[in-house]
Amino acid sequence: MIAFLGPEGTFSQAAALAVAGPDAELTGYASVTLAIDALRAREVDGAVVPLENSVEGAVPATLDELAGPASPLVIAAETFLPVVFDLLVRPGTAMAGIATIATHPHAEAQVRRYLLTELPGREVALLGSTAGGAQAVANGEYDAAVAPAIAGELYGLQTLAHDIADAHGAVTRFVLLRQPAPPAAPTGNDRTTLVTYLAEDHAGALLEILTEFGARGINLTRIESRPTKGRIGDYCFSIDCEGHIADARVGDAVAALHRVCADVRYLGSYARGDGRVAPIDPRRSDRSFSDAADWLARIRDTGVA
Amino acid sequence: MIAFLGPEGTFSQAAALAVAGPDAELTGYASVTLAIDALRAREVDGAVVPLENSVEGAVPATLDELAGPASPLVIAAETFLPVVFDLLVRPGTAMAGIATIATHPHAEAQVRRYLLTELPGREVALLGSTAGGAQAVANGEYDAAVAPAIAGELYGLQTLAHDIADAHGAVTRFVLLRQPAPPAAPTGNDRTTLVTYLAEDHAGALLEILTEFGARGINLTRIESRPTKGRIGDYCFSIDCEGHIADARVGDAVAALHRVCADVRYLGSYARGDGRVAPIDPRRSDRSFSDAADWLARIRDTGVA
Amino acid sequence: MIAFLGPEGTFSQAAALAVAGPDAELTGYASVTLAIDALRAREVDGAVVPLENSVEGAVPATLDELAGPASPLVIAAETFLPVVFDLLVRPGTAMAGIATIATHPHAEAQVRRYLLTELPGREVALLGSTAGGAQAVANGEYDAAVAPAIAGELYGLQTLAHDIADAHGAVTRFVLLRQPAPPAAPTGNDRTTLVTYLAEDHAGALLEILTEFGARGINLTRIESRPTKGRIGDYCFSIDCEGHIADARVGDAVAALHRVCADVRYLGSYARGDGRVAPIDPRRSDRSFSDAADWLARIRDTGVA
Amino acid sequence: MIAFLGPEGTFSQAAALAVAGPDAELTGYASVTLAIDALRAREVDGAVVPLENSVEGAVPATLDELAGPASPLVIAAETFLPVVFDLLVRPGTAMAGIATIATHPHAEAQVRRYLLTELPGREVALLGSTAGGAQAVANGEYDAAVAPAIAGELYGLQTLAHDIADAHGAVTRFVLLRQPAPPAAPTGNDRTTLVTYLAEDHAGALLEILTEFGARGINLTRIESRPTKGRIGDYCFSIDCEGHIADARVGDAVAALHRVCADVRYLGSYARGDGRVAPIDPRRSDRSFSDAADWLARIRDTGVA
Repeated sequence: MIAFLGPEGTFSQAAALAVAGPDAELTGYASVTLAIDALRAREVDGAVVPLENSVEGAVPATLDELAGPASPLVIAAETFLPVVFDLLVRPGTAMAGIATIATHPHAEAQVRRYLLTELPGREVALLGSTAGGAQAVANGEYDAAVAPAIAGELYGLQTLAHDIADAHGAVTRFVLLRQPAPPAAPTGNDRTTLVTYLAEDHAGALLEILTEFGARGINLTRIESRPTKGRIGDYCFSIDCEGHIADARVGDAVAALHRVCADVRYLGSYARGDGRVAPIDPRRSDRSFSDAADWLARIRDTGVA
Repeated sequence: MIAFLGPEGTFSQAAALAVAGPDAELTGYASVTLAIDALRAREVDGAVVPLENSVEGAVPATLDELAGPASPLVIAAETFLPVVFDLLVRPGTAMAGIATIATHPHAEAQVRRYLLTELPGREVALLGSTAGGAQAVANGEYDAAVAPAIAGELYGLQTLAHDIADAHGAVTRFVLLRQPAPPAAPTGNDRTTLVTYLAEDHAGALLEILTEFGARGINLTRIESRPTKGRIGDYCFSIDCEGHIADARVGDAVAALHRVCADVRYLGSYARGDGRVAPIDPRRSDRSFSDAADWLARIRDTGVA
Repeated sequence: MIAFLGPEGTFSQAAALAVAGPDAELTGYASVTLAIDALRAREVDGAVVPLENSVEGAVPATLDELAGPASPLVIAAETFLPVVFDLLVRPGTAMAGIATIATHPHAEAQVRRYLLTELPGREVALLGSTAGGAQAVANGEYDAAVAPAIAGELYGLQTLAHDIADAHGAVTRFVLLRQPAPPAAPTGNDRTTLVTYLAEDHAGALLEILTEFGARGINLTRIESRPTKGRIGDYCFSIDCEGHIADARVGDAVAALHRVCADVRYLGSYARGDGRVAPIDPRRSDRSFSDAADWLARIRDTGVA
Repeated sequence: MIAFLGPEGTFSQAAALAVAGPDAELTGYASVTLAIDALRAREVDGAVVPLENSVEGAVPATLDELAGPASPLVIAAETFLPVVFDLLVRPGTAMAGIATIATHPHAEAQVRRYLLTELPGREVALLGSTAGGAQAVANGEYDAAVAPAIAGELYGLQTLAHDIADAHGAVTRFVLLRQPAPPAAPTGNDRTTLVTYLAEDHAGALLEILTEFGARGINLTRIESRPTKGRIGDYCFSIDCEGHIADARVGDAVAALHRVCADVRYLGSYARGDGRVAPIDPRRSDRSFSDAADWLARIRDTGVA
């Protein structure tokens, strides 16, 4: 059983089907927090939640659940879904008839300029999900919903305007969270997610961290300083890097971080889902690492390579 | 006239008074976007908006308005406000009588576990501001609001539970935005905000950026990769660093970034508001820079120092 | 008048003609030290001395005269000469008749294995110059000299074996030293020589120095730690880098070194003499530097670029 | 049997006694090359040769024998000897009676200014060792020798002037070379010697090498670019660093160099002989490395630390 951010008709459901397979049994939860709680309580086997959006950036609720003090979880897979929002109404409603609009805060952020221009002055209610907004429109609580088309179909609404996001081509990255387990074998095109906690606040602490990646030819694909729930300025870094924890260069870099950081939390290695392929410098291949280790062992044993 | 995130009774109003002075004329706007729009339209002289929160992290709406393609604005000042949320009700309401709760999404994120524990299963409505939630409770639309105590006083509500945030001691950083203007003179303890856009996606692009700061002894106090509104993976970095653009070391570092990055946007230098003092390495003082420049000029002119 | 490492018939004389022009008046001195002393005493206008050899490495006498506490001199030009040593004898002498061999220590180092193999057990006298060895053979003091063919011609000797160096293709780099003066204009393919004295002995002091070059895309073509005439371990670094002190990226790097090092001594910028061309990263061109400086000035003046 | 740079009475003999113990059997050779050849031919068990001098810098003959293509040798121990040169004459000779002076080229370099000032214009013969100079004076071939006092005692000479070096306090570092063998166990205050050959000539190749040391908190105590016996500009780097190949941080750095360099030659780990103690950053201790390796193994096996 896989948790997703319900109700039915959200992008999260489509993502859950994409990442967990069309036969997966799904169950909706009202928030990221509740879905993750269900996973931690072992009521479900996995939880599909949004991690970042190409317009809005990271999803704090997800990042902070992963980085926080509660029991560890890992990312087992990722998928990227295009995000297309429609303006949905009950059949017969025209633009002029819209006084109230319901949607989710992240959706609202992505259609903000459209609403200011096309529907200025209307009341916008922020609900827990876009599908919930569509449902509320079907129930007559609001006049229009900003939601994916699938939600309109589910609740018998009509599309009054299609793809209304201020920035077209938005994509949301969803991840499948699981209880910690050995990661799937490397595919050759993987991603690894980490949180690093800084030992001290000195010029160059972050530089030190990045040097460990750079010296091993490992690209970062996302980095964010995150407050550690204390005073602003006490940061950790949430990091995605190319490669798999089983890759020699990644394991070596992560072990180095463990030495120089106050703490490092491993959040999973999984096949990259964005269709990008990162070539590996031959000087940083597994073969290069094992050759160097063998060479060092010979020198330590005999004094000569 | 200074815009703030209205209505009255929000932290944003308190922040606006703190940063713009007790005599400033304030005017409330319903969202960060509207407040910034008013500044861009020159309807107001400044806008006080939240930039980051010690629990939730950066405020995407603010960051993206500053980094985006619209006309440039700069940060002229910052202030840090403790964030204390109360559970506010109409006089006479008890816990058992609460079926619906209204608050702002950022506040909801900070009291999420409290609500799950103490008020499980209640409907939570996400509104545009916490004060708006208090007002709606006063109007009888909801049973309880999660909002600062000042909002309760303003709308005649009672505190049923005080300081209910999951993490106590939360702080929000507010900034005063203005039209671009020469920055105030350095105070000796300043902060500078930038956005850097990467020329290419290679291992070490970020390392290159950080090296320019590290080599000049400049600490970063915040860094976030932000999507540039296109495909996920095309990032810019939103950066706060210690020091003032008029400081030699900061100007030198920022000019170096201009050379190596696709683009750099300067977002202001202003007195640091968090009470932290960062000592300056004497080797990176203004005096050290002017000595080195004089020395270089002598060598270029005469062949000897 | 240009000093060279006399007597006539040495590589140094050929180098002096190459670097100072065929019409230059030359005067020979018995050692590098004496030639440089003559320049410091303004008895000559320049001194042509060897700086490094592709087999033996740096010439300490030259490096230390340039780095030491005496009055500063600068390198005004460089040239590279192939080094070919012959075994020179008086007409009629055969291999079997050689009991004693005269040469200069640097030449001896380059033919050491040849002598051990072909003339084992012979006495080798180390003199102040290879030409001096040829002269001494002509005088009957020794049986054979290891010296350039030109010395054999000058002193009436015969070549018994040609090009006897252990490593063929050796090259010596000679430099023309002068009193400090404004360097010649950049040619677009120049070299700059420096000595940097370290402020402290910490892991990364050298890394710090190299970062200033690397961050500006400047290749080093030679680096050597040199004792500062005190306890071993108190080092300075003798450095050659690509580019000219008048180039923005080089001047900027050198000024940065002045800030982070205990001391920096500039030893000249001059046209590169080894026929190698180093392309300049457009991000580090003079244009890129002046654009960045203009951009910074606009921001400091107006708050916007 | 241990080879040293004979004849008796040289600093090299004193160094050989210091490093090989007072009971070691010693045998003198006429040059560094011959002593090392004897070791390679297994005629001796070790060879004590000078590696660097606090005034003159590295000894090229030694460095190049170690870095070159011949069969590998390793440094098994080092010792530092103060270098004090006296002006030695046959009893009865006065300053005015000195027309010719004999010494070794390295000694000549260290007393050059003294001779120019006190004995200007005298002929200086450069021989294979300072003791050989003393012997030649005793034999009547020259009038004075520049050599250590011990050589004067051995050959019945008198000290006419004591400690005549231009820079007082000079020290020479001697090393005991042996056939490759497992290094002695770490003492906690060791040094490791390496030669690294660069894969390519790009801005930052050396920076890359130094980063591997710097990122592991390892100080370099000597670095020299050396020509690889080909065209000037094709360099290798001769490096001394703190620590022992058996230390986790050193082995890890050296293995990293093996991955990024064209070649790395290990030249031994041995107790540091200069009396300096380098504290080890606890983040780079063996314990820190084994903790990190264990932590990584747990993550790879189970997905959680």
